[in-house]
Amino acid sequence: MNQPFISKSKKTLIPMGLLALISACTVNPQQSAVLTLAEQGHFAAGGKVIQSEGQFNGEQLFNPAGQTLHGDHASVFYQIPVNARPHPLVFLHGAGQSAKTWSTTPDGREGFQDIFLRHRFPVYVVDQPRRGQAGQSTVSAEITPATQDQAWFNMFRLGAYPDFFEGVQFPQTPQALNQYFRQMTPNTGAYDEQLISDAMAEVVKRAGESILVTHSQGGGPGWWTAIKSDNVKAIVSYEPGSGFVFPENELPEAMPSLTGTLTATPVTLEQFKKLTQMPIIIYYGDNIPVQVSDNPGQDNWRVRLKMAQLWADTINRHGGNASVVHLPEKGVYGNTHFPFSDLNNQTIAGLLSSWLEQHHLN
Amino acid sequence: MNQPFISKSKKTLIPMGLLALISACTVNPQQSAVLTLAEQGHFAAGGKVIQSEGQFNGEQLFNPAGQTLHGDHASVFYQIPVNARPHPLVFLHGAGQSAKTWSTTPDGREGFQDIFLRHRFPVYVVDQPRRGQAGQSTVSAEITPATQDQAWFNMFRLGAYPDFFEGVQFPQTPQALNQYFRQMTPNTGAYDEQLISDAMAEVVKRAGESILVTHSQGGGPGWWTAIKSDNVKAIVSYEPGSGFVFPENELPEAMPSLTGTLTATPVTLEQFKKLTQMPIIIYYGDNIPVQVSDNPGQDNWRVRLKMAQLWADTINRHGGNASVVHLPEKGVYGNTHFPFSDLNNQTIAGLLSSWLEQHHLN
Repeated sequence: MNQPFISKSKKTLIPMGLLALISACTVNPQQSAVLTLAEQGHFAAGGKVIQSEGQFNGEQLFNPAGQTLHGDHASVFYQIPVNARPHPLVFLHGAGQSAKTWSTTPDGREGFQDIFLRHRFPVYVVDQPRRGQAGQSTVSAEITPATQDQAWFNMFRLGAYPDFFEGVQFPQTPQALNQYFRQMTPNTGAYDEQLISDAMAEVVKRAGESILVTHSQGGGPGWWTAIKSDNVKAIVSYEPGSGFVFPENELPEAMPSLTGTLTATPVTLEQFKKLTQMPIIIYYGDNIPVQVSDNPGQDNWRVRLKMAQLWADTINRHGGNASVVHLPEKGVYGNTHFPFSDLNNQTIAGLLSSWLEQHHLN
Repeated sequence: MNQPFISKSKKTLIPMGLLALISACTVNPQQSAVLTLAEQGHFAAGGKVIQSEGQFNGEQLFNPAGQTLHGDHASVFYQIPVNARPHPLVFLHGAGQSAKTWSTTPDGREGFQDIFLRHRFPVYVVDQPRRGQAGQSTVSAEITPATQDQAWFNMFRLGAYPDFFEGVQFPQTPQALNQYFRQMTPNTGAYDEQLISDAMAEVVKRAGESILVTHSQGGGPGWWTAIKSDNVKAIVSYEPGSGFVFPENELPEAMPSLTGTLTATPVTLEQFKKLTQMPIIIYYGDNIPVQVSDNPGQDNWRVRLKMAQLWADTINRHGGNASVVHLPEKGVYGNTHFPFSDLNNQTIAGLLSSWLEQHHLN
């Protein structure tokens, strides 16, 4: 359970300087086989209340007249370790996922939730509004059982179904794939970046000065959370997939790919400049092509990585501090769209841990 | 955080014999302010796989042809304390609820999940198929934002909205009520007792010989879980609301109430007899009328308590060991439909703890 931060994969070659840094992080006397918590719990954050017209009549319980509905909140599970570090990690999942994203990996190893608890970070794992345990929505939704497992297999870059990529950092067992597919859970109302970031601002209000960790679709509401709240002290984004915010006068050209065209989201310069006030790091994994690919599942990420790089350049040009780490360029190979639960997630955690240390955030 | 098992409510009068028993439970050297876990994690259990006809084409990712969908599983979060007792508690929520039911109370006190972890029980908290983080369903659903908060206020016996019952064990603050209403989360597919109990049988297969703890609507699939699995060693049911199983030749008469007519579920004698093989305890709270009430929210529980008593009598007549505890008759007053998160939940936990001890289940 208490694995070192060094991947056992043959393909993972880590430069010596980086290795030294990672090794430094592994020497953590607080790590042990036991998780020691000062506190844990659940709460709802943010959300709306809607009300039907009329007067509630207690003799007609399910007549909506005058009754309210509380919905569109985030649902949050938090754990505070003993001797906690000052800044919690607040985790926001991606499309079709829930707080489960950050827990146990598909093959039963520890995920980022446990790994960083062992590093004495308080952790807050969120179900965003209209997802998972935060399913109560103020708008209607039709949920249809869409057969899409193979689409996600390709889109999340496990391989080209049914083949796994060579050296992919995903456990190639039917059991793990079964668990992975069952992590998906649908929206119970329309996806709404503003609504999600409104709730996330309430999450970090309660968590305190936080390090926000987002994944994929969560990238977009993540930027908005930092625009809306003063409690986001750093952002870590794994493979942000949409919602890159640019100053309205500096929008990049739309980027066509085999899964559609990626466009940027315009914000005011004042909103954008909020994002220059904190260190930001973005990670992308392996098997992302540079040229147009004939595999839509891979081509999708070609334009996202490109826009992330443009985005970081724009942040930095405005005086900010953003960097994009394309993991294979650092000698870390085989990562899927879920680096934090991949086979080498201890290595991925080590990279993040080093970055947090560099920015005095641990 | 580490409160004794004695309620501070003025109305809670506990008989001396019982008090001694409860006091014995509070003297637990393992309890401390710190939660010490050997392990925690998340997994999916059970479920189905459906597949669209045809052949998957990786160039058309979201063409369903040939693709599969994994759904209808349970999603489970588990925590194993250090020096764990042998039998885990496996918790199944009620209608409109999720695993959150068992976590922090609406006013931020510890729920049964933490209380029993401190008593060194492994805990497994479940989102049943088509609920919460187990939202991926193999059937369609239309979700509509029904304004029903006041209905649940009355139905869950907090009071007759907007008035709380006198002495009710619910925190009467707007903040607590807000958190309480936000615990609700909708079905993402039709409620299906057989499907839920199929998945629950897989949960207890993994958890090992378990004490199954159910709430409200969860009572029904709870009985079926014990019929389907040999790993249910005891059942604790808080205010079971429907799905009472009786031998097909011994069905009680239907029981009309102001919220509809409660009927029993016929099973074979062989299935029923499975439930005579383990100790079972059922708890109901306060403000349940004996005669027809003009408050549907209360009247609903009049017939459920009555059927539970008939049910326990039938179990015992067949050689089983079931009891129904109507809490006010034991001097424990003011409990709502959620005794395990009520203000006196430490008292409620103490009663359960004593019962487990009596049955050598701790």
